[in-house]
Amino acid sequence: MLVESKLGKVLLVGAGPGPVDLMTVRAVRAVESAGALLYDALCSEEAVALAPPGCVRIQTGKRAGKPSMKQDEINRLMLRLARRGLQVVRLKGGDPSIFGRVGEEKAFLERFGVETEVVPGVTAACAAAAQFGFPLTHRGEARRVVFTTARVEDGAMAGDWRMGGDPEATVAVYMGAEAAPTLARALIAEGRAGSTPVAAVENAGAAYARLTEMTLADLGAAPLRTGGGPLLIVVGEVAALATAQSRHHTERRAFA
Amino acid sequence: MLVESKLGKVLLVGAGPGPVDLMTVRAVRAVESAGALLYDALCSEEAVALAPPGCVRIQTGKRAGKPSMKQDEINRLMLRLARRGLQVVRLKGGDPSIFGRVGEEKAFLERFGVETEVVPGVTAACAAAAQFGFPLTHRGEARRVVFTTARVEDGAMAGDWRMGGDPEATVAVYMGAEAAPTLARALIAEGRAGSTPVAAVENAGAAYARLTEMTLADLGAAPLRTGGGPLLIVVGEVAALATAQSRHHTERRAFA
Repeated sequence: MLVESKLGKVLLVGAGPGPVDLMTVRAVRAVESAGALLYDALCSEEAVALAPPGCVRIQTGKRAGKPSMKQDEINRLMLRLARRGLQVVRLKGGDPSIFGRVGEEKAFLERFGVETEVVPGVTAACAAAAQFGFPLTHRGEARRVVFTTARVEDGAMAGDWRMGGDPEATVAVYMGAEAAPTLARALIAEGRAGSTPVAAVENAGAAYARLTEMTLADLGAAPLRTGGGPLLIVVGEVAALATAQSRHHTERRAFA
Repeated sequence: MLVESKLGKVLLVGAGPGPVDLMTVRAVRAVESAGALLYDALCSEEAVALAPPGCVRIQTGKRAGKPSMKQDEINRLMLRLARRGLQVVRLKGGDPSIFGRVGEEKAFLERFGVETEVVPGVTAACAAAAQFGFPLTHRGEARRVVFTTARVEDGAMAGDWRMGGDPEATVAVYMGAEAAPTLARALIAEGRAGSTPVAAVENAGAAYARLTEMTLADLGAAPLRTGGGPLLIVVGEVAALATAQSRHHTERRAFA
């Protein structure tokens, strides 16, 4: 007699920008109830530690010299675990709907009849803004905010940079370290002033986040030197309001 | 002899999109330790109920027929409460850095020497995407996402809509109900196809959220009828992936 095994569900969960207290309550509960946990390199150890003792834990991103898993491999692994009847939690840094490949993973799993649920999270740009005390929109100054990535193909910037010329837009570039000089040229070519303030935030949200302030012209002048963490580049008048002291470092923080 | 009173701190806290379990753990702790709580109309009763018994609770947004407080009035109230030595929590729907006026409030308070801290939150667009199962970015299809508002002045759309013509951008319009037809015309004028899918989400994130699907041309054809809740309009190819069934309604949800 065949035993019919119940398909597990896959939760695609945003871990937020790093600190475990910047996860949503729903995300914390999802990890606490996981049968299998697949986590990105950007997820904190504290977040992973929330998983229950019996939980299968698999790191999908590169860390400690190990190469990253390919997307296809991650998809097939989630499917295999769900078919074992496990509740699978796919934990991703930030918000899964913004540069998190949630659409691809969801489509793959649903093709095989696996139910999915997405748990939103705090995205890196919101975390950086909170941490360094600048808003992403600001009355009369920044009426729009654009989240984008900087793809460089054959040394040239791919994509459409029209929105970068809008003086009332804040442009937040995810994973922008490598492409910074090309990005600066593209935005200036679209009419953005070279004097536009820029805040480059490495490891946004983390206690060890680092802010570098410059102008758009300076961003173009030289490649950014970074400690190797993910770099978020925020271009726009609001970046001038950034304060070098991370708000997460203040000793007078009232709740800890 | 004068008694020197210690200035309270003001925490500008994102409550996320509604359900209390979509608040971050840090936001929950902030409300739990508040001496005074000023909350938006968009904040849920459950979130407000997290405040401790002795906490001063003040509603700043319109609800039950009462008019909203003016921004200046809110600013002065926060200052007064901080000067009483209270830890003030200003709880805002969504993320405070996105259309939350955090920049204005912070600047006002710091002018009077009051320390502030911003706690980020899940913004409505991320919540809507998670809830209705579409991504805001999608490989090869939506490389950028723009968060904007639709301001209408004298019947005309104010602002710069260049980014709306970019076929690879998802455009999420906050508080877009009134301006929807004007918005649609502006985006089409910038070259966006009339056939572009649109997801209009009322009360994004809430259990009673409602999705309406249409095309950009249809959005322009008539004013949207809504139940009066805040309306988020998402324009872009990704909107075609939205599923009418809110993921937060499924009975098989594994953690509750």
